[in-house]
Amino acid sequence: MKIIDKMHEEDLNALLVLNPYNLTYLTNFRPSSVAVLLITDNPILFVSKMEIDDANLKSKVEVEEFKSLEKIKDIMKGRIGIESSMKIDTYKKLKKDSSVDLKITNITENMRQVKTNNELKKIIKALRIAENSIKYIDFLKNENDVAAEIEYFMRLNGASKASFDTIVASGNRSSLPHATPTPQFIETPILIDWGAEYNNYCSDISRTIIENEKQQEIFDIVRESQKKAIKAIKPGIKASYIDKVARDVIGEYGFEDSFIHSTGHGVGLEVHEGPSISKNETSKLQKGMVITIEPGIYIKNEFGIRIENMIHISNKGNVLNKLKTKITS
Amino acid sequence: MKIIDKMHEEDLNALLVLNPYNLTYLTNFRPSSVAVLLITDNPILFVSKMEIDDANLKSKVEVEEFKSLEKIKDIMKGRIGIESSMKIDTYKKLKKDSSVDLKITNITENMRQVKTNNELKKIIKALRIAENSIKYIDFLKNENDVAAEIEYFMRLNGASKASFDTIVASGNRSSLPHATPTPQFIETPILIDWGAEYNNYCSDISRTIIENEKQQEIFDIVRESQKKAIKAIKPGIKASYIDKVARDVIGEYGFEDSFIHSTGHGVGLEVHEGPSISKNETSKLQKGMVITIEPGIYIKNEFGIRIENMIHISNKGNVLNKLKTKITS
Repeated sequence: MKIIDKMHEEDLNALLVLNPYNLTYLTNFRPSSVAVLLITDNPILFVSKMEIDDANLKSKVEVEEFKSLEKIKDIMKGRIGIESSMKIDTYKKLKKDSSVDLKITNITENMRQVKTNNELKKIIKALRIAENSIKYIDFLKNENDVAAEIEYFMRLNGASKASFDTIVASGNRSSLPHATPTPQFIETPILIDWGAEYNNYCSDISRTIIENEKQQEIFDIVRESQKKAIKAIKPGIKASYIDKVARDVIGEYGFEDSFIHSTGHGVGLEVHEGPSISKNETSKLQKGMVITIEPGIYIKNEFGIRIENMIHISNKGNVLNKLKTKITS
Repeated sequence: MKIIDKMHEEDLNALLVLNPYNLTYLTNFRPSSVAVLLITDNPILFVSKMEIDDANLKSKVEVEEFKSLEKIKDIMKGRIGIESSMKIDTYKKLKKDSSVDLKITNITENMRQVKTNNELKKIIKALRIAENSIKYIDFLKNENDVAAEIEYFMRLNGASKASFDTIVASGNRSSLPHATPTPQFIETPILIDWGAEYNNYCSDISRTIIENEKQQEIFDIVRESQKKAIKAIKPGIKASYIDKVARDVIGEYGFEDSFIHSTGHGVGLEVHEGPSISKNETSKLQKGMVITIEPGIYIKNEFGIRIENMIHISNKGNVLNKLKTKITS
């Protein structure tokens, strides 16, 4: 187990894992109830009584029944790595009357950023499901029903679910980047942001269907921003630099104040995970990462345009999408 | 604002809210990105730049752009209530070089347990959507596709989404309480556990479709357990007592080891929230709570039966469900 080497590097005697995505990554079992993984030379996954049979079928790690945090505390010794996402009340329970030395670490999250080939295959499958599911959508209905249909088609195509709440924002509602679909009949442009979850892995994609010249003008700026950002991707470069490249193009056309979110993010077991492709991110891109590049321009009370692709980093940025950038209804 | 009174009772100068469900409860805005609510005499909701317009439309509380936790820290004074779900890294950032006194409190979670009439209406609507969506399902397909169809119908009936991953577990897979649907053609019994989210509020219901006498026998025990537990509900009684009533019935028939989860839980903005109806819960039932009662018997490698209803507590437990307990495919 590679994680053991990383633990040794950080002088940890054990690693305590509660975050369900980290648990899935390290054991192959996605818990739906309380679950705790204690990694030592003999890792044990503790799950609720009702999940023991299911966990035994799927987990790479030995499974035991979770009885209480206290019982796990009793077998912890020395310097224990904990996740930065640990809840404060769990932390306080662990500290209470205990001599263990708890050290926050992002070992698992950092490992998760660099995908194995096996993970990449699942991500690509999740992306294909999402892309294929939009091809036969009839857009002549209300936003809610379009979102419902996309999600239904994704499930029929093999997704376990939508990887996040589908956004179908049309007309002036497209100027709200995270708008929730409404019961209103669809207008143009139609901004759609959707993704599938397949075998625990996520995809994330956005397209905007446009109809007139003004929208085309903005669309072209966003597309240029995306292209240049993707072209700038290579291992070793700062994530913040890619954000700057995307932002500078939009700034050249005077729309810097209308690009109101970051340029992208990692995708894997979580639809949003590290690295963030944003101004304040300090990390560098690495071979094997999968990220989105999704610039957007949002003109208040008028409309918004966003285009989002998924990129796998080898020696350069490889676009994983097959769906064309400009789609029509 | 009632929360202010509760804060005074606990001698808090301010309350810092990061949990998205608590935020929704207190502001009416459901954030999809970083958001922080600081409650003082002049509460402020800080949201990401891209959500400002949407938050301004929906929030009951004044909205400002979230810039950094440090900026919020600068305006905090005295004794500050924080949530037990706060992440440890956020807690450490707040503590660093700061004189604020942070005190873990469950004020908001406790308030949320007792529903207003307005909340109850939304929960009932979420339940009706779920119940109506199963009526026209064709079960002659694989588990995945049944789950997909239930979720699709819920959306067409007005749900914003499924309130959790729909469980359709048939044949011997029904013996795993939280089984995920498979691509296998459906067998009997068919255990279905599903719910809708409507206007941020959740429903949660389970039915098991049975076909033979052995299944009917177990079904009747589970139904008796559920009925007696519901009958025992009244304000002031311990939640753990209701669990005991349900468990005792199943024990009488010798199946105590086959009831491998708790008897129920609160439902509201979250599909699982307080109180837990379980052995170790120390709290008492209160008027206005909405809880599930969902005993089950799971016979390994054979089959499982679960029946789940939603109950609103007035002077007694009122079943909110209209769908009959025994449904057929």
